[in-house]
Amino acid sequence: MSLTIALDMMGGDFGPRITVPAAIQVLEKYPTLRFLFFGDHNAIQQYLPQIDKSLSQRIIVHHCDRQIFSDTAITQALRYSKGTSLRLAIEAVQKNSAVACVSAGNTGALMGLSKILIQPLPGIQRPALVSLLPTMNGLHSVMLDLGANIETNAEQLYQFARMGAIFAENMLDLVYPRVSLLNIGIEAIKGLPAIREAATLLEKDININYIGFIEGDQLLNHYADVIVSDGFNGNIALKTLEGTAKNIIQLLKQNQSTHPIWCTNWFKQILRHMLKEKYQQLQSFNPDKHSGASLLGLQSVIVKSHGSSNSNAFATAIEHAITQVNKNIPEKILNELR
Amino acid sequence: MSLTIALDMMGGDFGPRITVPAAIQVLEKYPTLRFLFFGDHNAIQQYLPQIDKSLSQRIIVHHCDRQIFSDTAITQALRYSKGTSLRLAIEAVQKNSAVACVSAGNTGALMGLSKILIQPLPGIQRPALVSLLPTMNGLHSVMLDLGANIETNAEQLYQFARMGAIFAENMLDLVYPRVSLLNIGIEAIKGLPAIREAATLLEKDININYIGFIEGDQLLNHYADVIVSDGFNGNIALKTLEGTAKNIIQLLKQNQSTHPIWCTNWFKQILRHMLKEKYQQLQSFNPDKHSGASLLGLQSVIVKSHGSSNSNAFATAIEHAITQVNKNIPEKILNELR
Repeated sequence: MSLTIALDMMGGDFGPRITVPAAIQVLEKYPTLRFLFFGDHNAIQQYLPQIDKSLSQRIIVHHCDRQIFSDTAITQALRYSKGTSLRLAIEAVQKNSAVACVSAGNTGALMGLSKILIQPLPGIQRPALVSLLPTMNGLHSVMLDLGANIETNAEQLYQFARMGAIFAENMLDLVYPRVSLLNIGIEAIKGLPAIREAATLLEKDININYIGFIEGDQLLNHYADVIVSDGFNGNIALKTLEGTAKNIIQLLKQNQSTHPIWCTNWFKQILRHMLKEKYQQLQSFNPDKHSGASLLGLQSVIVKSHGSSNSNAFATAIEHAITQVNKNIPEKILNELR
Repeated sequence: MSLTIALDMMGGDFGPRITVPAAIQVLEKYPTLRFLFFGDHNAIQQYLPQIDKSLSQRIIVHHCDRQIFSDTAITQALRYSKGTSLRLAIEAVQKNSAVACVSAGNTGALMGLSKILIQPLPGIQRPALVSLLPTMNGLHSVMLDLGANIETNAEQLYQFARMGAIFAENMLDLVYPRVSLLNIGIEAIKGLPAIREAATLLEKDININYIGFIEGDQLLNHYADVIVSDGFNGNIALKTLEGTAKNIIQLLKQNQSTHPIWCTNWFKQILRHMLKEKYQQLQSFNPDKHSGASLLGLQSVIVKSHGSSNSNAFATAIEHAITQVNKNIPEKILNELR
């Protein structure tokens, strides 16, 4: 069955330079996939190589000369969003020309426009931003909300937990995933009232495998399959985690180039080989390599790739969108919450 | 001038095994320093070596056979706190037998008892937990509140900022330290109302060098000298940072031992030497090596050492208490906020 995805080609730090090769890469892998490209025609052509007709006929380029920059304030971005590549890509989903939208652009604008243009699923109070977090054992946890809602009540946290569990079941192939609430460990003040009430709701629900609170220092240790928080704390935690990982990896890379003078090329080669595995494992914690985040709770699939995504990361984000469409995530959430 | 500090010898994961050697180490360095040891006499004696009279006469051991364990719920810990090493150490400060208290024990109990037993400075609405955060350039930022208050209003965040600035001026020898508020970057929803209002208060105050919001991924990059948040977000951010750093360091250590078979001892030695500097730099991000946190806004100096502190970390925590006493931090906060 053919499947059409709308791509915002202008989003992210590098625009068509990375979005075009990523799209071609995914197109080669999925023979029935089609893309709607939204962005500057000339810029897109510049990075579009001589490709086989079997690929090119599955791409339709919708030219637009406007785009939302990642540093534009969201209120302004929304006000002047008409005719931008991001808005047109989301509108394509709204009009059923595409089943999903992927962008590496302005997160606030993507969330704002998606909430305005795409209907939330009936019964869902708030859509949430969800992502797969790499864990130390090489697996993943699902984490949400990562910034779509700064203040949430117990019922909304409970909905996030249920949506997160469905996401984990389908994206990580899990049965009865372990669900936890992000909290702080100092007990008398054990969390905000909304978190305590959400815990009570989750404990009562036998369909949810609720395992209790999780603290910030355990996020990478795969103690839970689903980590639930409001968007403010989730965003603080995720950004802190990414910043720390990136800084430490950077520190290691820097030092690696300052070898002592007696260090021969032969020696360097061996050292590089030995450290390679380490770096590969570390790289999984580098946010630039992530697949990005998805907006959960809407009628359609909306995937946000990291602004600093390279071509592989953007390709992975597109593949995530495909998986979510193929697994009918929105429909499954709808059925579950009915 | 003689200075007496009360030590909870039983706190932390290792109790007297690390608190006794740490105390001796600091005692040797400060010839007029005196300690009140609170804890089990036998356990303390076991780790107290044959020491010179010049040292031993500056220690008074107050035996008690009760202690608060780090996993005890705070409500229970407070209810049954009478006669415990932690409470007695804080009471020694309350009764002016000591000028400061240091413990590696139950954080919740330490904060709770300190708030009950030690008066807050006049005008201070809430004491806050403050710590020095290592930064990538080898310096430090001051971060507060790390968990003493989960919900704070704008005025309280503003007070934290002012206390944090005084702490940074004195502990980091800075003039006009750069103050920031921890926030998330998605603009339309730019933070909770209290954070936005606190920003307005800080912008108006010419005595504060307020530089704006900071996000979680910039905490280690020394963009600000003082990072202010409520205790919930601060705790989430700090724990996430520590957990990530610890996990990545662990990952590197693990892999280091799995050398290929052709790896000779000679080669291993060189490799170890080359990686040593890296690890030393990384170790500054290891929470076990930190000096701990202080409760700011009270009449006296209360320092909490990390539960997993080794002897050096506990010694550093004691030295931090000495510095805070010598620099009259409580008095300076009082004068500034008057």
